[in-house]
This record gives sequence, structure tokens and C-alpha cells, in this order.
Amino acid sequence: MLHGGDAMEKEQELSKLLRKKRYLRFYILGFVDAEGCFSVSIKNQETTRFGWVLDPIFQVTQHKNNKKVLEHIKGELRCGRIIEKSGQSDTLVYLVDNRRQLKEKIIPFFEKYRLVTKDADFQKFKKIVEGLENKEHQSKEKFKELIKTAFEMNLEGKQRRYKLEEVLNGLK
Amino acid sequence: MLHGGDAMEKEQELSKLLRKKRYLRFYILGFVDAEGCFSVSIKNQETTRFGWVLDPIFQVTQHKNNKKVLEHIKGELRCGRIIEKSGQSDTLVYLVDNRRQLKEKIIPFFEKYRLVTKDADFQKFKKIVEGLENKEHQSKEKFKELIKTAFEMNLEGKQRRYKLEEVLNGLK
Repeated sequence: MLHGGDAMEKEQELSKLLRKKRYLRFYILGFVDAEGCFSVSIKNQETTRFGWVLDPIFQVTQHKNNKKVLEHIKGELRCGRIIEKSGQSDTLVYLVDNRRQLKEKIIPFFEKYRLVTKDADFQKFKKIVEGLENKEHQSKEKFKELIKTAFEMNLEGKQRRYKLEEVLNGLK
Repeated sequence: MLHGGDAMEKEQELSKLLRKKRYLRFYILGFVDAEGCFSVSIKNQETTRFGWVLDPIFQVTQHKNNKKVLEHIKGELRCGRIIEKSGQSDTLVYLVDNRRQLKEKIIPFFEKYRLVTKDADFQKFKKIVEGLENKEHQSKEKFKELIKTAFEMNLEGKQRRYKLEEVLNGLK
């Protein structure tokens, strides 16, 4: 017997307890602490003042069978979108990359409902989003600080294409 | 600046809200729904009546930096142990493989706090644990049913070493 549509439906329904908003938020907190990702990509963009841009993004990735969970998260955080992961049609990503939404929805949520494993990364993420909102990237010294903070995130940027020195020395 | 000890400590503390047991349980529910795994391994063991055994195990895997979360889960579920993942010293596993603990602690917890993405697998897991507790594996026909259920779990057992037919035909 294959994993049928009924089982799938059943699996995706929220239990009675989770229908309580308060509980759902703690469920989401745990889910994001396990599977969520706060990251800030660093891109070379010659048209900008210093030649580099910082791009904060919050995302949660799941197999397409679990789309409903991403929809519950999206509904509760009241922003963002769900898209297919590029090159992986079985995988969906809930993502928020709009800076205003990050500032007004995502950051207040995780300030109120504090993460456990990812709080240190979240605090750096918050510092960068708020710095960009406050136009700190228009001052070279402050922009350098934001870049350094980005490199301290997610296991000290081991997965990055550029090295910290390369970015700092490459500032126009 | 490296990710220092202080930040690490801070990251691991439970926020005021999570100190409430009720909320912590929903946090754990979300964490397990994202990162937990209910599985039943099938092992060839000639000394047993039919030559095969079913071995249910519940586990949650994390980077060793996040040990505290596994400890909170262990504390809340009141059973199991935390060990280093074999061959991966950076990774820890919280695991429960004692059948009585699975029956008396793990199953009642996830019956009360219902999973969303993993509930279908959990229900099959529960059926197998209870079947084994009720000695159903001592009847060949009932044992076959339990084996089939195990193969329906975790994306229909695509990761298994043995094929279903191989196990069923190999029963003594």
C-alpha cells in the first residue's frame, strides 16, 4: 500500500491543540530553530557605491509533501512567499527577502519568541537588517562592520564564495 | 571576532517564555517535526524465530554546539540518551531505542502533541512498537504485516538495504 492521499491529508491537518495560535507559534519557533535559516549573502555589484551589496534572507526549506507547514508558517508570519527550490522540483522554500517585511514582521516575531539554537545568528541578522534600514551601508566604516557581522554568521561563513579580506579590500 | 563562549551560552539559554513547560512542549513538537526521525530498521538475525528482527528507534540529530536543545528534549521526554554520531564527532544524536520507553514515554507524548509533517510516519511507528509489545512478531502472518508497515515509512523505505520481497521471502 502506497502512502495515499488520505494519509497525506491527515498528516497535514493541524491538531486541535495547534489550532490555538499561541501554541502554533511555539511549534513554529521549534520548527524554525531546527530547519530555518537566517543568512546574509554578499554580492559583487559594480553599480553600487562600494561595489558590494548585503542581501538578508530568511528561509525554511521542506519537501513539497510538507507544503502545508510552510503555509502555516507564512500565515503566522504574515509575509513572504513559497517557491520551488531552483533545480530541485521536490523541494519548496518559504522565503522572506523584502527588507521591510524582515524588519516589521520577521524580526519582531523572533524577538518575542526567542530561538534557542539560532538566536546568535538571528541577533547578527537583526543587526544587519536594522543597519541597512538605517543606511549604515552608505558609510564605508559602518558598511565594513555590517560585512564583518555577516561573516560571523552560520559557522563563520565557511560556505561563502568570497573571503572576508577579499570583500573588505575590494570596497571601492 | 569568533563566535565566543558567551554567545554560545546565551544562545543555549531558554527564553522566559520557553521556561513554561507547556510552551516548551510545542517548541519540541516543532523541532521534532522538522528534525526528528521515527524509523524501524530491519535486521537479519539468524538466531530469531523467523530470521529477521524489527528495531524501532526515535532520534533527533544536531550539531554538538546545540547539545542543550537535545538535553531539553531528553528532559521533557524523560527517557533516552545523547551520544556522538558514529564517525561524526561534531554531531550528536538524542535517541530512544528501548521499547518500553518508546511505548510509555515517546508514543504518549506524540499522541497528545500531534506532529504535522511526521504524523503519518509516527502512526506507523506506533503500530509497530505496539505490535511488538503485543508479541505479534511471534505469528508469521502478523509479523509480515509489521514488516510491510515498516516499509511504508520514510518515503517507502527507499533508503533500505533489503527489498520488501527479499525480507518476506527470507522468513524462515
